[in-house]
Amino acid sequence: MSLLAPGGLPAGLDTPALVVDEARLEANLARTADTMRRAGVALRPHAKTHKSVEVARRQRAHGAAGLTVATLGEADVFADAGVDDLFVAYPLYASAAKAPRLRALAERVALRVGVDSAGGAAALGDACPGLAVCVEVDSGHHRTGVAPADVVGVADAARRAGLRVAGVFTFGGHGYAPDMPPGAGADERDALAGAAAHLTEAGYDLAVVSAGSTPTATYSARPPVTEERPGIYPFYDAQQLALGSCTVDDVALVVAATVVSVGADGRRVLDAGSKVLGADRPAWVRGHGLLPAYPDVTPAWLGEHHGVVDVPDGAVAPALGEVVALVPNHVCQVVNLADEYTVVRDGGHVGTWPVDARARNR
Amino acid sequence: MSLLAPGGLPAGLDTPALVVDEARLEANLARTADTMRRAGVALRPHAKTHKSVEVARRQRAHGAAGLTVATLGEADVFADAGVDDLFVAYPLYASAAKAPRLRALAERVALRVGVDSAGGAAALGDACPGLAVCVEVDSGHHRTGVAPADVVGVADAARRAGLRVAGVFTFGGHGYAPDMPPGAGADERDALAGAAAHLTEAGYDLAVVSAGSTPTATYSARPPVTEERPGIYPFYDAQQLALGSCTVDDVALVVAATVVSVGADGRRVLDAGSKVLGADRPAWVRGHGLLPAYPDVTPAWLGEHHGVVDVPDGAVAPALGEVVALVPNHVCQVVNLADEYTVVRDGGHVGTWPVDARARNR
Repeated sequence: MSLLAPGGLPAGLDTPALVVDEARLEANLARTADTMRRAGVALRPHAKTHKSVEVARRQRAHGAAGLTVATLGEADVFADAGVDDLFVAYPLYASAAKAPRLRALAERVALRVGVDSAGGAAALGDACPGLAVCVEVDSGHHRTGVAPADVVGVADAARRAGLRVAGVFTFGGHGYAPDMPPGAGADERDALAGAAAHLTEAGYDLAVVSAGSTPTATYSARPPVTEERPGIYPFYDAQQLALGSCTVDDVALVVAATVVSVGADGRRVLDAGSKVLGADRPAWVRGHGLLPAYPDVTPAWLGEHHGVVDVPDGAVAPALGEVVALVPNHVCQVVNLADEYTVVRDGGHVGTWPVDARARNR
Repeated sequence: MSLLAPGGLPAGLDTPALVVDEARLEANLARTADTMRRAGVALRPHAKTHKSVEVARRQRAHGAAGLTVATLGEADVFADAGVDDLFVAYPLYASAAKAPRLRALAERVALRVGVDSAGGAAALGDACPGLAVCVEVDSGHHRTGVAPADVVGVADAARRAGLRVAGVFTFGGHGYAPDMPPGAGADERDALAGAAAHLTEAGYDLAVVSAGSTPTATYSARPPVTEERPGIYPFYDAQQLALGSCTVDDVALVVAATVVSVGADGRRVLDAGSKVLGADRPAWVRGHGLLPAYPDVTPAWLGEHHGVVDVPDGAVAPALGEVVALVPNHVCQVVNLADEYTVVRDGGHVGTWPVDARARNR
């Protein structure tokens, strides 16, 4: 029985709740690990999605080389749990508050950190001499990172600051739109290849050429890329369905919600609003998530505690009091809003896992 | 020194952080309490905004009649802290999982709960005989609640289910747009007056006629309204500024964020993204929050850990590594994403308060 079918959730669940199908999770972990193994590329999953020590343990069991995190706070949680190889894929600014935390982390795990400016490199070097860094390359997302032609300047500043330049990384976030993942994956590979060539020419010996996101990972996983950092693949979500990263049978996490109100126009209101689902809704998804058991209805707008579902005339819709399974748009946000996962196997509740690194944003 | 001025934040803050100006908070609590007192209307602040036992204590000290909450989980937190009068202003569906929790709560505090359907009333009555309920009225937001003409049907169902009908309530959420609060406040009052008249005619004796939100509270606070439920007024935010609920000098909470990257086009990237700021951005605000010290720049888009600030040619913008104060769009979301408040007085750090009811969404 699928989580996504009517009646597929365990009976008696209190809602709203995040429900994980353990068998699907395992299948997703195995499939991506296998894809990367066959591509000859290391898998370093981004733990900002799951924030879970238990999911991280399973990723390592499937051969992950280490973890990617976004913040020192996330790194601390996974280091405490015994993960000994971490990449903070973020241009961390080593302020007076962060410097001692960074030094303490570097003393206990194999660590690398992102950098995208001479000023950032200087602060990192002051904070943590000898730290390994990867220079961030902008492959088209235009968020952080420098153009491939500018990586040598940042690397030289890092070397002058006493840092060790281990490699380059990018995030092809412009792949988050329909039909864009193949091109964005190619952009990642091209930008990294260009950056790596500049650095090699300048005498740097690069161990790490790191790309990736769940939609682009299969497209950029070839030389000179040495590792991929997808985050969402353990669970998938409605955005990944729209991007073609997975099928609906791969979705391993749903939000269980109860219909608390039925409007005069037939609308259903769920007890999961933006404080549970997040508010991410790009123009290329239909609504605020999907209700696979009720394909003709649309979660149209959210209050903080209200998910308002439009029901067209004649559409089959859930009844007052019914518990439904909703596939959220962006699972990273959803997990960060929750304290725990409810884990099920074969339709039965088998336990809860804490969201260990929830809200570790600094 | 204001939190919002350059250099107004305490030195050495780790970021991102939620920073509360205690003096402004106190002024906001006093002003709204005074406004409601002069209007002859009880103030029952919505605690879903602050989720803080300490802020609730201060609201009670300023004369609040009790608290409003959105969920049983929030109610449990405040009941544990000694708040003995709670209104769950939500059409709670008393499932098998929620029924024992509801009964336990009703035994230890003065409690009322929202209801907007005969089915919801039946479930509440089975769960908790004798419970006080308020019928939710739709005053124009079209989320939950019934039309004024339909309240008697819900009230009769509640009475048949063994519940006590204490009154009516509404939320004029359609007031969340420029120039709309006065009209939405009038709509709240009109809808409640109509609903109350129908119920009085049907023989109900109503103790509670409850309205409110921060933008509409001053407009609906007159007879027959007996209480107002604003939530955001302790802190305010960029949405409330755009709605005219406050001035920039009233804003009592900011997100402290560090500039971690400066792009080739001058953009600044802050270490506060959607996992700190939330993603709420109605069309009628300029960006994802405001940087009052840098009025010409715009937080234009968010990654999970990146706040990307557009900097027009020639605009003054913060430097790499600088800590800035950002007024977020919707403070309810921001607080729910954090574990604690950093509290300052006269520019100095005086303590931290936990976000006690964070993520208590069920």
